Amino acid sequence: MSRILCSLSLVALFALPAITSVQAQEDTVQKIARFEYKGKVQYGLVKGEAIQAIEGDIFGEWKPSDYLILLKDVKLLVPTEPKQIFAMAGNYKSHLSGEIPEKFKTPQPFLKTFSSLQRQEGNIELPAGSDPVHYEAEMVIVIGKECKNVSKEDAKDYVFGITCGNDVSARDWQKNDVQWWRAKATDTFSPCGPWIATGLNYDDLLMTLKLNGKVVQEERTSLLIHDVATMVSFISQHTTLHPGDLIFTGTPGKTDVIKSGDVVEVEIEGVGVLRNNVVDE
Amino acid sequence: MSRILCSLSLVALFALPAITSVQAQEDTVQKIARFEYKGKVQYGLVKGEAIQAIEGDIFGEWKPSDYLILLKDVKLLVPTEPKQIFAMAGNYKSHLSGEIPEKFKTPQPFLKTFSSLQRQEGNIELPAGSDPVHYEAEMVIVIGKECKNVSKEDAKDYVFGITCGNDVSARDWQKNDVQWWRAKATDTFSPCGPWIATGLNYDDLLMTLKLNGKVVQEERTSLLIHDVATMVSFISQHTTLHPGDLIFTGTPGKTDVIKSGDVVEVEIEGVGVLRNNVVDE
Repeated sequence: MSRILCSLSLVALFALPAITSVQAQEDTVQKIARFEYKGKVQYGLVKGEAIQAIEGDIFGEWKPSDYLILLKDVKLLVPTEPKQIFAMAGNYKSHLSGEIPEKFKTPQPFLKTFSSLQRQEGNIELPAGSDPVHYEAEMVIVIGKECKNVSKEDAKDYVFGITCGNDVSARDWQKNDVQWWRAKATDTFSPCGPWIATGLNYDDLLMTLKLNGKVVQEERTSLLIHDVATMVSFISQHTTLHPGDLIFTGTPGKTDVIKSGDVVEVEIEGVGVLRNNVVDE
Repeated sequence: MSRILCSLSLVALFALPAITSVQAQEDTVQKIARFEYKGKVQYGLVKGEAIQAIEGDIFGEWKPSDYLILLKDVKLLVPTEPKQIFAMAGNYKSHLSGEIPEKFKTPQPFLKTFSSLQRQEGNIELPAGSDPVHYEAEMVIVIGKECKNVSKEDAKDYVFGITCGNDVSARDWQKNDVQWWRAKATDTFSPCGPWIATGLNYDDLLMTLKLNGKVVQEERTSLLIHDVATMVSFISQHTTLHPGDLIFTGTPGKTDVIKSGDVVEVEIEGVGVLRNNVVDE
């Protein structure tokens, strides 16, 4: 039975205080998933092997509902429907071969497309015309409130939470095209999920990428050249950010080729694992 | 009185056959505006000095309603709410100084942001940190139906119509940043409108840009290196396009500086005039 309403869960639910906004929960880590169940798209709180559905707007007023669905019975979706998606070039020293070129002392964002987003367990499709395509493990910032021209000091007030991302990159197109649009934003090139974690100290989390079970990227987010507050503040000097907008924060270390049949897993401490299979288009 | 329901207009309306889809009107030029009136955002058909409100979804089934509003009483909005916005680099020989470099024999798209869109009569805001900022007159394609991997032959079936655009460009950021995100997509850098024109032969229209009343760009869209069908087909090989998505098609000839107090007007034959004032941020 996919909908479980056991007495134990109900006791646990009634013991929780009413939650009227995310702000009230800042000291508690929560995992908020967007999912499809029986054809309906909704948000819910991840509680172990179950999801507790949410009523309301996750970026405004909301409260947990009184029913649970087994996690294995839902289709997890990309956690938001962003109006715009930013990503960062060269934001770890280890990715820049140990030195920070002058240009990268200023944040260097670029843009990704809505259509490039891919959900948890969705396939990364390798386009026929590009070789090689690389993985790039990244922490992703989820914006919670509209903002423009925010200071570095205030920037964190506009961060809703974080999730895992993979900034899949077609290196030949990245090198040869005038801009990176298809190199970084071909359909399925922006896996993102499995859900949003709120309340974590995202300035110091371990991030790893496993390719077919073997760790190939491993770094702490404390080593970001431009940290979360700096990125949000910098981008907001030029662009109005909206609730649900995403910022892929850059990848550490060396990246390598993915090929059909590979399994790529990006894990961030306290968040979870974003898992995608690689297939030929 | 802002709502006019004169007998002459009613006679004209009743004489029109019922319109159930845009496809049925392909042989007739229509101007479809998105606007705000008394706090409500809606679509309507531009009829001279009036707008006839539309009922339904402009990308699906719709019909004109039986009431008119004076054009001067509405606030025209950016014609769509796109999920993604593409623009083209180097798509007129005249902009590439007369020769087509090898790289530009392939279409060279780049991305713009939702927040960079600006409506008819909205201000182009010059950011404090950039100099010089240039105008770029462009025809903008409005996508009408979801599409992926469409052939050049079928591409026009997915084009809803066209509108006028200005791909405002901060030249120093365009030259010095790793990617063009803020050079081409700072807030207000993508004026677009005043409305969508359907049923035009967009492969051969005169486009002009007037700076303070003086013509400074003038070219026919027949001189696009990669025409509308080619652009839509090419982008769709990599990206799923959605109804309302926009493609800025590139600018002809030489561009020049805009400064606070300037008035920029982009006109496309059969469409109308997109007008924006320039101010300091």
